[in-house]
Amino acid sequence: MAGTLNFYLIWLDWPERCFRAGAAEVALLKSLAPKGSRVVRVTGERAFLRELPKATHAIVWSFKSEWFARAPRLKVLATPAAGQELVPTTGPDGVTIHFGGFHGTIMAESVAAFVLAWARGFFRPELREKAWPRTELSGVCTEVAGTCAVIAGYGKVGRAIGAKLEALGVSVAGITRHGVFAGDRRLARSRLDKLMAAADWFVLALPSTTGTDGFLSARMISKLPRRCVVVNVGRGNAVDEKALFAALKSHRLAGAYLDVRCHEPSAAALESPGYVPELADLPNCIVMPHGAAFSPRYLERCIRELKEDGLV
Amino acid sequence: MAGTLNFYLIWLDWPERCFRAGAAEVALLKSLAPKGSRVVRVTGERAFLRELPKATHAIVWSFKSEWFARAPRLKVLATPAAGQELVPTTGPDGVTIHFGGFHGTIMAESVAAFVLAWARGFFRPELREKAWPRTELSGVCTEVAGTCAVIAGYGKVGRAIGAKLEALGVSVAGITRHGVFAGDRRLARSRLDKLMAAADWFVLALPSTTGTDGFLSARMISKLPRRCVVVNVGRGNAVDEKALFAALKSHRLAGAYLDVRCHEPSAAALESPGYVPELADLPNCIVMPHGAAFSPRYLERCIRELKEDGLV
Repeated sequence: MAGTLNFYLIWLDWPERCFRAGAAEVALLKSLAPKGSRVVRVTGERAFLRELPKATHAIVWSFKSEWFARAPRLKVLATPAAGQELVPTTGPDGVTIHFGGFHGTIMAESVAAFVLAWARGFFRPELREKAWPRTELSGVCTEVAGTCAVIAGYGKVGRAIGAKLEALGVSVAGITRHGVFAGDRRLARSRLDKLMAAADWFVLALPSTTGTDGFLSARMISKLPRRCVVVNVGRGNAVDEKALFAALKSHRLAGAYLDVRCHEPSAAALESPGYVPELADLPNCIVMPHGAAFSPRYLERCIRELKEDGLV
Repeated sequence: MAGTLNFYLIWLDWPERCFRAGAAEVALLKSLAPKGSRVVRVTGERAFLRELPKATHAIVWSFKSEWFARAPRLKVLATPAAGQELVPTTGPDGVTIHFGGFHGTIMAESVAAFVLAWARGFFRPELREKAWPRTELSGVCTEVAGTCAVIAGYGKVGRAIGAKLEALGVSVAGITRHGVFAGDRRLARSRLDKLMAAADWFVLALPSTTGTDGFLSARMISKLPRRCVVVNVGRGNAVDEKALFAALKSHRLAGAYLDVRCHEPSAAALESPGYVPELADLPNCIVMPHGAAFSPRYLERCIRELKEDGLV
């Protein structure tokens, strides 16, 4: 019954090296798939659409809803992406749609990296201004253990970040639409303002889906202490960049790490009139090019997660 | 019996802010000392030598051997420094000499900061060369969990660094004069070359006392893999800077973080003919101004350690 064998169609050819499937990913998927399955890797939309009618499983960065009509055998549509911008969230009956949930492990290292490096002075502008700024740094380096973090968006990614920070001795509270949490323990919502007033780190790990536009507003910033440092590794829309720029410029906040922006060069769909390019020029704002989840193991983690979730 | 009461003399007035005692340290020491003790803080050698005859305890950055003759009541001579360059290691009978052993907690954060920030791309030169180097970074960011570290100098500081790296999922081995260790477990010395060949991080936490000059030589570097990154948070003399410069320039090693140098502007005693100033200009060498232990809690930790060790 060759017709019932699985046919895995991989179309992952983004320019970012760790987002591009190669022979290693094909071999890994083959080793995890039922015997006799086919695994085909394509590059480009044309090749993908040519193979799509045969596919039982498709692993892609983007997929148009109208393509479901060309995929009569499709059982699983999977994307490594956590964000739901480029693959439909619902499909025909019988098609399971899967978004990646493995990013937290990697992103937690990015957040921990920034938090520690910020505290230990590695981003101080004095390092660029002077050969040996010892006295300058002696008054500004701090310890991370014993500080407090509030994480807005406390799903898989937010919790992985929280666990990593806790391993470094940080007290962590998380906010979701459903309440305020410390680990799995629910806290009274009324404690949120106090937690924010005590936050050394305010971490955003929010999706761009609904209701998160401008979440970090001037009003939210006013609840944070001046020593607080903002981290955004979710989506750029969650930050009111004008409000953040003003706060960083006036030292109303101590600093920021933005892995994502309102407008990103390679993602026109996220363009926003609220984009403030000058943020990247502030010495207390560390901008990274949406790479908090970059890893040579990115696609390996994606494929292993599909297997663990019974989708291979 | 006023004459038997303790007299604590604090002379800690280095230019580095966190190394300078103030009212907070006096108050802390008073709260920990026996009732009726005096705590006096001085600035400058003259004032120190004037008070020294009364002192039962002296806490200092530097002390000359000939001063013991002026300190008939002295029971404890303590320095926050871990390095033994500026305070004699032995004194008259009845005088306990104490060097700080609290630094590891803080320094472990500095090493973890560097290791994570290096792996997650925060030091990449592409960030200075381009506004949004996403494709560039996508091939170079790595994960820290699952990597291997070898720590040369596995005393209090080395072990604290090892424990912090282990909390991040790093496999750690330590080298001392007495052998090779994984935690408290002794490994066969013959395994050292294999451990070095597998090292993603080679961390130096050696004192400058004896036999550590040029420890990281061209020969040692040749045992490390090309992907390896060197970290020196001990003393600058342990690195053969010419050998390291050549290795970094030719990419025989991936990178380095030097918190200490063969010659440091504020420590002429450590001057060395082997100093290579150009190390700081290499894009893969991160130089920090001997600040791995900087912390607002530095002197607090020092005083609490004295109390814990029964020296207050």
